[in-house]
Amino acid sequence: MDHDIMPTIIQKTRDRQALSASEIRQLVDGVVSGAWPDYQLSAWLMAAYCRGLTDTETFELTGAMADSVGPPQEPLGLVDKHSTGGVGDKTTLVLAPLVASLGLPIAKMSGRGLGHTGGTLDKLESIPGFTVDLSPEAIRAQVRDIGIAVVAQSSTLAPADKRLYALRDVTATVDSIPLIASSIMSKKLASGTRHMVLDVKVGNGAFMTTLERARELAQLMVKIGEFHQRHVTALLTTMNEPLGWAIGNAVEVNEAVACLKGGGPEDLRTLVLALAAALEQSVHGTDPDTAYGAARDALTSGKAWDVFVRWIAAQGGQPASVEHDLPLAPIAREVHADRQGWVAAIQTQSLGEVALELGAGRHELGDRVDFGVGLQCFAKIGRHFDQGETVAIIYARSEGSAEEAAQGVRAAISWSPQSVAVPPLVLDRIAGA
Amino acid sequence: MDHDIMPTIIQKTRDRQALSASEIRQLVDGVVSGAWPDYQLSAWLMAAYCRGLTDTETFELTGAMADSVGPPQEPLGLVDKHSTGGVGDKTTLVLAPLVASLGLPIAKMSGRGLGHTGGTLDKLESIPGFTVDLSPEAIRAQVRDIGIAVVAQSSTLAPADKRLYALRDVTATVDSIPLIASSIMSKKLASGTRHMVLDVKVGNGAFMTTLERARELAQLMVKIGEFHQRHVTALLTTMNEPLGWAIGNAVEVNEAVACLKGGGPEDLRTLVLALAAALEQSVHGTDPDTAYGAARDALTSGKAWDVFVRWIAAQGGQPASVEHDLPLAPIAREVHADRQGWVAAIQTQSLGEVALELGAGRHELGDRVDFGVGLQCFAKIGRHFDQGETVAIIYARSEGSAEEAAQGVRAAISWSPQSVAVPPLVLDRIAGA
Repeated sequence: MDHDIMPTIIQKTRDRQALSASEIRQLVDGVVSGAWPDYQLSAWLMAAYCRGLTDTETFELTGAMADSVGPPQEPLGLVDKHSTGGVGDKTTLVLAPLVASLGLPIAKMSGRGLGHTGGTLDKLESIPGFTVDLSPEAIRAQVRDIGIAVVAQSSTLAPADKRLYALRDVTATVDSIPLIASSIMSKKLASGTRHMVLDVKVGNGAFMTTLERARELAQLMVKIGEFHQRHVTALLTTMNEPLGWAIGNAVEVNEAVACLKGGGPEDLRTLVLALAAALEQSVHGTDPDTAYGAARDALTSGKAWDVFVRWIAAQGGQPASVEHDLPLAPIAREVHADRQGWVAAIQTQSLGEVALELGAGRHELGDRVDFGVGLQCFAKIGRHFDQGETVAIIYARSEGSAEEAAQGVRAAISWSPQSVAVPPLVLDRIAGA
Repeated sequence: MDHDIMPTIIQKTRDRQALSASEIRQLVDGVVSGAWPDYQLSAWLMAAYCRGLTDTETFELTGAMADSVGPPQEPLGLVDKHSTGGVGDKTTLVLAPLVASLGLPIAKMSGRGLGHTGGTLDKLESIPGFTVDLSPEAIRAQVRDIGIAVVAQSSTLAPADKRLYALRDVTATVDSIPLIASSIMSKKLASGTRHMVLDVKVGNGAFMTTLERARELAQLMVKIGEFHQRHVTALLTTMNEPLGWAIGNAVEVNEAVACLKGGGPEDLRTLVLALAAALEQSVHGTDPDTAYGAARDALTSGKAWDVFVRWIAAQGGQPASVEHDLPLAPIAREVHADRQGWVAAIQTQSLGEVALELGAGRHELGDRVDFGVGLQCFAKIGRHFDQGETVAIIYARSEGSAEEAAQGVRAAISWSPQSVAVPPLVLDRIAGA
């Protein structure tokens, strides 16, 4: 590559002149080959942050990052789902076996938890024996046999994204919609999956705190998908309270199991059905009501549960371990309402941090996770509690950490003496052509 | 220093939140110590480029960069001058002995040429024996004895500026007014000089091509000076044509000598007198007319010339070499007007590039300069030429390069069949309190 092109590329982005497809390919090639030094990349990232990128530039950037993986492979699955991350988000644990039971094969690459958000891999690893490291051949075979695999993301899946993300993390350039959208979608494009649903979280426990920015991100990702001939549906869903009750690892698996058996919190079931229906609709072109009905039937009939059991066994999980609840930390500390009233607001991120401090998450990459700790928070905006009713149960290893967590939970919940409306879960739906 | 502060500093500048004086000190400390990696610095530079810095931030940044040199020293000179660079700018060669002859000691740090702009050090080194490398003690003694020294900038004078400039050069962040102003003024503050005049060039041969941006830069530098208790006067002067006739090294020394002897091109003499008067006025508080009269008398009486001769000898230059013109390259090729008419416009940068291609300048740092090559261009906007009159003389080493230069000179000059007004040399004057 021509080294003189780097300052020119930086300058064009800085001056809001759109880069050509060829310039973007050279940029990404230089990211992967190492020809672009970090200091020029970070200047370009900040220019892109400050000046933005056009939709066409973002489409090309996403495509070039996806192509940096190597020649396209036969896709491992037919459908995929991505969440932008939140608190108590155990959706994949229910959704993946549900869509597989609908005849939609899914091979999902997941991540680990960091900070106040948990990670699907950690939750799955709280099942004794479960492994998330499968070879591509093993993934392919498992998806062919039972329609489902959930594994750790391969480090070679997105080399350009990996380097760019590491730089963005230390140069205050994470929070840019074109850069976020291209990062997420490049990995999805690279996997080759034709149908995907995006769960874009919005609220005080999510990366996107306003509906406006969440919608902007969702629209851009849907457009990227259209440009690259993928069927993408995005749901904007609230993260102004945790999803479901459970926050932690084993405690979230238990809640997912309850959901697959027809119980569990209503918001989790509603979200899973909405996401599954979106994929069913995308693949089969059925109308929304039929798609939703099919998803609901698969969940209530036990078909999804059957797939879940086979899936856990296929990835080494002890079958007995999901027959009963996974064991939790020994100290179960209840938090009671100190007055009657309605839940008015929840500091969602704070609840994620309570779980983190109990040991359920990671302050830094490499920290060890304690699968058994966590909490169940039954407070939901608009729900009424009598004085003394149980608002939350904390699962802790020590009285001290339980007390600290109880204080954290109390501080995170705001009460109203008047009734409060229950807010909607799904705020918007954006579908590509 | 606290490493977590770096992303915070980048983020604040990115979000147009002003940094505190303490944050700016930590930034500059990290630049000098190396604690800030290049990739974070370049992200910060691009954020500053895109979002700007407040005047107060720029004042603090300049002060912190100046202080990074070490504890303040007794200033070497009383007055100083800085030019933002142009084509044919031999001002220092005349101005420095002129102000010294007015009793205003000057110890000037100069630079070398790069690209289409020449450098004072290269011009001085075309005088046989002249050295630009003096110890601080030798500079101090020479300024005490004869009131003048012009030397190479010490590499330790501005360590923060040096690192930042090297990064700006490769990350498309050079062209930022607060970054330019703080870079220039930090070196001036570090020298301790109390009175300075800034020659801010504007036009098609200058870094600032519009009067608006040049004025913005000049105003900011004057304000930085005020904040740091320096007397700063800025003149905005045209660079829509070269200064004087000569472009090169020895050929420019010859023109400076002519000026010191009372001859040479009018624009050079006008500019030198305006700059000297500004310094005289700044130091002695005299009214503009008296200051200008004193400068003119020192130039026409030969006082400035006497100082020049002593100065060249003090820095090792052979006295005989300035008694007569310095020798030029053997091929003197005249360019004649191919029609009668008035000069309408000059592509100034192109003329600088003609001299560069003849060998008078450097494509890259480290290139060798040929002192004898260059040109005299007598074309000035508004001047009338008869057909066949000499427009320029090229001094070259080969017929081929002379022919190429002649074509370059012809292409750089636009003619008008109607008379054209002579544009003003000094476009504006901005003085601090």
